[in-house]
Amino acid sequence: MKHSKAEPRLEELSEPECLELLARQTLGRVAIVVDGRPQIFPVNYGLRGKVLVFRTASGTKLAYAPTTPVAFEIDQYDPSERTGWSVMVQGIARDVTESGDDFSWFARGVEAYPAAPGTKVHRIAIDPITITGRRFAVEG
Amino acid sequence: MKHSKAEPRLEELSEPECLELLARQTLGRVAIVVDGRPQIFPVNYGLRGKVLVFRTASGTKLAYAPTTPVAFEIDQYDPSERTGWSVMVQGIARDVTESGDDFSWFARGVEAYPAAPGTKVHRIAIDPITITGRRFAVEG
Repeated sequence: MKHSKAEPRLEELSEPECLELLARQTLGRVAIVVDGRPQIFPVNYGLRGKVLVFRTASGTKLAYAPTTPVAFEIDQYDPSERTGWSVMVQGIARDVTESGDDFSWFARGVEAYPAAPGTKVHRIAIDPITITGRRFAVEG
Repeated sequence: MKHSKAEPRLEELSEPECLELLARQTLGRVAIVVDGRPQIFPVNYGLRGKVLVFRTASGTKLAYAPTTPVAFEIDQYDPSERTGWSVMVQGIARDVTESGDDFSWFARGVEAYPAAPGTKVHRIAIDPITITGRRFAVEG
């Protein structure tokens, strides 16, 4: 039994670990750049391979996200265990609602179920460039 | 007793409601733009008035955030109640670690306690421009 001084530990997650965490969650946040300023929106998402998909109505996300760089993030913190992790996907957003290209077909094969109300007929997928994550623990 | 069809409801939150939610939490996410691409980082924060403060070590946040537009977000979703909300602060990030101006003095008056390990000697404050939020519920 070790009850010595708390030793914080921070480690990078491998891409497979990040994908496993992404596959277990359904709610994350997407950041898009609107006129040079970032905005963050919570979205429900689905994952197929390394491709994230979320649905949206007409609005800021549909107007600004497609073909631009976006970031997507999930995280979790357990105050009682003092452990936490976060995963970030950086990539290019694509409107895959109707396009006939291979990427859009592939992306339409994953379902995303928005918890928030409203008809969200558009599907936006993130074509990933980097998938990174960190985990930390304060060991007692 | 109403057990008719589920009726989703979505409402905007007032700024005082947003500030109340921000005051109750300590963990959020900041989005910054790095070379035209957004990135999202989880941070522990403190709030004084409408000013959010978080601490950071040398790194991406310190190198890119100050004097640029950033977004900060918190959210919560309760799957059993099917209710959720999110709050977003958009503003300009400022390095208030040592500056002698009024804003920096004010911002240094709030404490932020990082949960993640590592020495984080720099304080970054968000000078807010807009504070917005939404709440939704699916009524049974």
